[in-house]
Formats: sequence, C-alpha cells, structure tokens
Amino acid sequence: MLGTVLYGPRDVRFEERDTPAIIKPTDAIIRITATCVCGSDLWPYRGINPITQPTPMGHEYCGIVEEVGNAVTSVKPGQFVIGSFFASDNTCPHCQAGYQTSCQQREFVSTAQAPILRVPLADGTLVSTPEVPANDMIPSLLTLSDVMGTGWFAADAANVRPGSTVAVVGDGAVGLLGVLSARQRGAGRIIAMSRHKSRQKLAREFGATDIVSERGDQAAARIKEMTMGIGADAVLECVGTQESMMQAIRSTRPGGSIGYVGVPHGVELDGEQLFFAHVHLHGGPAPVRRYLPELIDLVWQQKINPGKVFDLTLPLDQVAEGYRAMDERRAIKTLLRP
Amino acid sequence: MLGTVLYGPRDVRFEERDTPAIIKPTDAIIRITATCVCGSDLWPYRGINPITQPTPMGHEYCGIVEEVGNAVTSVKPGQFVIGSFFASDNTCPHCQAGYQTSCQQREFVSTAQAPILRVPLADGTLVSTPEVPANDMIPSLLTLSDVMGTGWFAADAANVRPGSTVAVVGDGAVGLLGVLSARQRGAGRIIAMSRHKSRQKLAREFGATDIVSERGDQAAARIKEMTMGIGADAVLECVGTQESMMQAIRSTRPGGSIGYVGVPHGVELDGEQLFFAHVHLHGGPAPVRRYLPELIDLVWQQKINPGKVFDLTLPLDQVAEGYRAMDERRAIKTLLRP
Repeated sequence: MLGTVLYGPRDVRFEERDTPAIIKPTDAIIRITATCVCGSDLWPYRGINPITQPTPMGHEYCGIVEEVGNAVTSVKPGQFVIGSFFASDNTCPHCQAGYQTSCQQREFVSTAQAPILRVPLADGTLVSTPEVPANDMIPSLLTLSDVMGTGWFAADAANVRPGSTVAVVGDGAVGLLGVLSARQRGAGRIIAMSRHKSRQKLAREFGATDIVSERGDQAAARIKEMTMGIGADAVLECVGTQESMMQAIRSTRPGGSIGYVGVPHGVELDGEQLFFAHVHLHGGPAPVRRYLPELIDLVWQQKINPGKVFDLTLPLDQVAEGYRAMDERRAIKTLLRP
Repeated sequence: MLGTVLYGPRDVRFEERDTPAIIKPTDAIIRITATCVCGSDLWPYRGINPITQPTPMGHEYCGIVEEVGNAVTSVKPGQFVIGSFFASDNTCPHCQAGYQTSCQQREFVSTAQAPILRVPLADGTLVSTPEVPANDMIPSLLTLSDVMGTGWFAADAANVRPGSTVAVVGDGAVGLLGVLSARQRGAGRIIAMSRHKSRQKLAREFGATDIVSERGDQAAARIKEMTMGIGADAVLECVGTQESMMQAIRSTRPGGSIGYVGVPHGVELDGEQLFFAHVHLHGGPAPVRRYLPELIDLVWQQKINPGKVFDLTLPLDQVAEGYRAMDERRAIKTLLRP
C-alpha cells in the first residue's frame, strides 16, 4: 500500500510501505474511512521536534474493521470503529481511573495516514458506532479520535460547569472544539482568543460569546477587565508554548482551573508564581478513550457537529498539500480520504 | 511593649516597640494568649529570604479582643478569637469563592510575636470560639491560625477522600498536620515521609499507616513499589523545594492530585514532565479563614488535637531560643506565651 512518511522539515512523502497485518492476537486491522493532519503533526513537520529517520505519520482515524486477532472479542469485521491516538488495554489501574493515555501497556498509534492501519489492544482501544454511519457524519466521528476528545478533556480538566465563565487560549482545531465542549457543558460565557476572522467565525458558531484578539499579558489583562477584575473560572490552554501557558495562568481567577492540552514545548513554570496564582492545573495527553462512548452518542444524535473544523478535504495521496495548507494557516484542519 | 524583630540571619531580638492601636475603623486589637514560630519564619531567619531592614515577626495568633474599631460588628471585647495569617474582608469575589488568602484587600499579619496585635479587617479575619477556652485547648486552637489550616488545605487541594492512598512529603508541623487532616478526611492509607524518630512517632499518632525514610527519587520509587506500581491517589507537598516538588509529582498516580502548600523556593516545573505525569496540581497560601469555623468545631469537640505539634513552649521573651531550637531541628514547633 501507499502511506505517509515524514522525511524531514516540510518533506512529506506518500510512498510504498508494507501493508499492516495482525502481529499480536489483540490486534485489529482496519480499513481507514478517513484520517487527518493534526496540529501536533506540525511540530516535527516544522522541524521543532527533530526527525532522525523517515517516520510514518498519522494518529487520528476511523474506519471499517477488516480482520481481528484471536483474542479480540469486542469488535468484529464490518463494524465502523473509532479509536484513540494511544492504544490502551482499558483494564489496568490507570485505564480504570479514566487515564487511558497513561495505560500501563499504552502504545502510540503512528501510522494512520494510510489506507490500512493496525490497531494494537483492539478491545481496549476501539469503540464501534451503532451502525456504519452516513457519509456526512464521518468528519465529526473522525474528530473523536483526538481533537474533539482533547477539547472535551480540556473543558473537563478545567472543571467547566453550567454557568462558568470560560476562556480558551488557542484557535486551532482543539481550541475551537474546546469552545464547543464548554458550550455543551453549559458554560455561561465563553471567551475565545483569536485574531483570525475565519476562526473567530467558527468559534462563534461553536458557542463563543466573546472574542479577544490580544495575546499574552494583554490578553490576560483583557480577560480580567471583562470579568470585573476577577478572572475566568475556567481556562482551556490549547497551544503549549510558554506564552500561552502564562496567558492561561494570568487569566484564571484564584481558585479557578486550567485544563491544559497543548503539548508543552519549552514550557517552564515558576513555582512561586504558580503558588500565588492559586489555580488548579490539570492536563496531559487527553484520555479520549474515556469519552468515546459519550461523544459518539452526541454526534450520532446530531447534538454536536465537531466535523466543522475540517475546512479542507483532500484525497489521501495529496497529504503533502494537506500539511502545507495547515502550516501556512490556509486551513484549520485537513481531512484525508483514501 | 516588647516585641520580636528579626535583624538579619539568626539575629532575633525581643525589644521595645510601639504598642499597636486602632488605625482604621475595621481594625481590632487583641491581647495575644499564644503565638508561635512558623517553619516559614526560618526562611528569613536562615538568610534564604534576605532581610533588608529590621522586620517584626509572627503571623500565627489567638487571643482576647481588647478593642475594636467603629465599623467592627462580628467580634467584641472579651471574646477569644483566632485569625488567619492573611487578613481578608471575606466579602470580595475571591473570599466568596473560598480563597481568602487572595482577598482583593488582603494584608499580611506580620507582628504577632508580641503581647498585643492589631488585626486589620477584623470582621472578615477573626472567628471567635463559643467561650473563652480552657488552657489545655490553647495550643490546638493556635494551630488553626496557620499550620493546621494549611495541612487541611493540602489535603483538600489533593482531593483526599475516604479510602484514598495518601503520601505526605515533609515532616514539619504542616506535613504532620497534613497526616492528621488526611486521617480526619477518611484516607485509607497514609504514608508519611520522614527520617526523624520523634516526627515519625507523631506522624503515627496522627494516623500515618506507613513511614518512608527515603528521599527524592528513591522515595518516589518506594511509593510506587508500595502501591503496586500505581502511585498515590493524593500527595501533600509540605516543603517547597525543587526536590520535594518533584518527589510529589513522581509519587502521584496518573489522574491523582497534589496539594502543595510549601512556599516554593527556586522551584521550576518542566511543562512536558508535568504534562505526561497527568496529575492535578493545586496549592498556594492556604485559605485558612475558610476552614476556621469547621476546625474550631473539631478542636472544641476534642475530635482532633493538632496542638501536639508543639514540643517546646517558652515564655515570649525567649523567642530567640524558640527560633534556634527549630532551626537546629531540636523542636518541631515552638509555642510562645506572653
């Protein structure tokens, strides 16, 4: 088969690779219906995370089960399934506590920008939909594999409740779906931080009540001003830089909470500053597996439409253009169809 | 009157000072029944926090109200009262959210190692006991002004629940009272980290089920080993150094919580490490005012006896020896009586 391989900064190739096959009895092979490019794929694409060897890419996926190993009992060929970017057994103590992305057997799924994918620990990782979905539901279901689950975790980690005043740092797909998640959880006021017209528009569609276009300390000052000097109850940090993290901390009221899901790059938190900020901090790789049943249900009932974050759809063999469009911020998120 | 003044490293003097008087109509003047030396007083005493001028000391206090300003309505002369180390109005949005140590009008109480003390914002800061207490209850009531409330906040911030496995980093008064707090909140297992016999003994009296004498990474490894590789549900960080904070983070299970109350000195947290640790982090200056009514009640009913942390009692004029004994770890905590 042909699959996506990153060779170095801005060098994405779609080239011949071995077709995956069952290796362990707990594996499943799925035929990809749709996959996509993640904001986090841009870190190595831009050379910020160095690439030392040609690296297969892709960790967001949904599709039809083709084959399962002997030990797999919860999914079967023909079913439409979605899985997390981290395979998990869903039975270890960390999984049982709802932190499947810290599973004792976790394995990163890293070859999903291809027509065929091997998923380890299939019973613990994959969740099937009630039926094979209609075509127009595919984009929303695909987001549950990572970005929607990650935005949802950010809102959960930030303790968003009915009536909360929420600020969202980051207007990428995760930030935008953080807005949608906060809305779905009943937030009273949702302040999206964005300086891009198209993203501001989508943030409003997803439920943002206010837009702040300042950045850094000025953005934090603006949030304070908008909340009578108090700060937001909940802040979703969806970027992962020093500036965005400090912006989040300074935007939060004492006793408030920050859910941080942007993978930190070069972030150092000053202990004393954090201490006197009096905030709750929780985050990490989102345990999207925990949320899959609930989120599949919300999409299935058409209560949420997170698939709107895809503003570019390409055939899989044009994956390189998909990366380029996101790198140049011409696209929020690229969906790829084999 | 004579009061305590720190002139520089290890130079504590008990000398003539102005007797405090009402300055604002929201003030109260109290005659100190007991005060004490705090672990945090040792930072400037040891020269780690530099002293630029002679500095009056003391922020833990209880005593009898002598006089109140015109605007004070909730306490009156003759009552026995306890207050937090931060005065607070108890009405601003941060106070209402339970974070009185971030009160918009907060003022540090810093002259309590003296026979007479002016307390600002008396209505928001002081809580009276049902009656003037018996002498043997004074030590326990005094701890509510800071160390007991701080240990309690650590347990609250670390989300200690019935059945939780808890680890406590730090065997000073706050750490020991963190043990007591965890026990009172129903923790199933409480691992105290200490290498000092007398402190281990008190930790056991307060409810510790296990003692770990290792430090740093070895201590964290020991906690993992004792919890079948999982880590503690809740960790109370009661020191404030880089080593103790990392020990806390590494001892916590993914999804678990750290309550940190040791004032951080030179602590830098690596964003990526924190991200993949998957922990909840909450702390800061303990809002002891929030807990005063509940904790006074527990002491009054003799359900807790936090006053046991005082293993040295001195007349106030021997305050310098009180500091020395704690500095040299001959005493856990020194109580001072005018």
